Amino acid sequence: MKVLVVGANGQIGKHLVSFIKESEGLEARAMIRKEEQAPFFEKLEAETAIVDLEDDVEAIAKAAEGVDAIVFTAGSGPHTGKDKTILIDLDGAVKTIEAAKMAGVKRFIMISSFDTSREAIQAAPSSFAPYVAAKHYADEWLKDTDLDYTIIHPGALTNDEGTGQIKTHQESEIREVPREDVAKVIVASLENDTTIGKAFQVVTGDVPISEAVNALS
Amino acid sequence: MKVLVVGANGQIGKHLVSFIKESEGLEARAMIRKEEQAPFFEKLEAETAIVDLEDDVEAIAKAAEGVDAIVFTAGSGPHTGKDKTILIDLDGAVKTIEAAKMAGVKRFIMISSFDTSREAIQAAPSSFAPYVAAKHYADEWLKDTDLDYTIIHPGALTNDEGTGQIKTHQESEIREVPREDVAKVIVASLENDTTIGKAFQVVTGDVPISEAVNALS
Repeated sequence: MKVLVVGANGQIGKHLVSFIKESEGLEARAMIRKEEQAPFFEKLEAETAIVDLEDDVEAIAKAAEGVDAIVFTAGSGPHTGKDKTILIDLDGAVKTIEAAKMAGVKRFIMISSFDTSREAIQAAPSSFAPYVAAKHYADEWLKDTDLDYTIIHPGALTNDEGTGQIKTHQESEIREVPREDVAKVIVASLENDTTIGKAFQVVTGDVPISEAVNALS
Repeated sequence: MKVLVVGANGQIGKHLVSFIKESEGLEARAMIRKEEQAPFFEKLEAETAIVDLEDDVEAIAKAAEGVDAIVFTAGSGPHTGKDKTILIDLDGAVKTIEAAKMAGVKRFIMISSFDTSREAIQAAPSSFAPYVAAKHYADEWLKDTDLDYTIIHPGALTNDEGTGQIKTHQESEIREVPREDVAKVIVASLENDTTIGKAFQVVTGDVPISEAVNALS
């Protein structure tokens, strides 16, 4: 199974490509924005595709040619202007979804935010609300497709070492989760089709990742 | 027919409430953000409802109780931060659409931007692209409902006096159109059910407004 990782150069993305390399039966193609980001992925023997999420759907579809699944783990990040929130976190995600359709890729895994409900937009502090809204509309767009989607809603991301143990129940209190564990949850979701059509939250817990992902069924 | 004007205190909104007052058979309820904006509308004998578009759907639905149509002509405007583009132009519009459903209001007129296509987002200069994207997703959300919608795509807005003459054909070159004429097009659309389910561009032209709107059928 070949997987296009959109946002591969991000922190979750890098963990993900590494774990895919270690996995049985998965291969990664890293979608990155700049040529100089390529060496990290070449060392992992992953293919690379250089596309900017502000490019058009066709460019993304070309990067997706021949893959079996797409993981969207890109984000505009806290260092860009608020104008990038709608162009990357919403429109970049939607263009990737449309590219999946165009390239005939059915499997799609979205890395969302912990709570992207209508209520969460209203409750968010004003500096965070635009991001929650962007993720909300991206998730809604995906759910409205015929793709085999999984939406992962991680808790507060940390760079701590992964514990390999999580909690996935809906509407839990927000807690932390290492990016490394989120990447492992993505791999487990790619390997387990019972995650298709599901959306779930992930925080650090006491259930081994593969067991917790299996229990979603 | 009672019409909730969302964004009544904007420049198109003020013209619209005035024209509704002069019309036969239409009445306005002005949705405004602040108490001090009320006197203008009280002079026009229009009802007012004080709601902020960053409030929740329920608050907007309450303002829509008992009306027969909703016109969305609000905009974050060029003086607010980019974060308001997604919260007002997209999320405020979607909340108003959801409020229409909640309040049982079937008729909905959206004042959009001249070209909100996928291609227009890609082609827009980077300072304008977030706004085009916000309007794109708001229009898409509306088209995906069962509401009796009309989407009006005005050209470059001016404060010139209206000529009463327009052009409505699809994919015309962008040209100017006075806000006063856009407000008249809204009234003509409210009065003409053949505009239901239609989206059309409006620039200054040589066909009288009511005739041009009738010709859409």
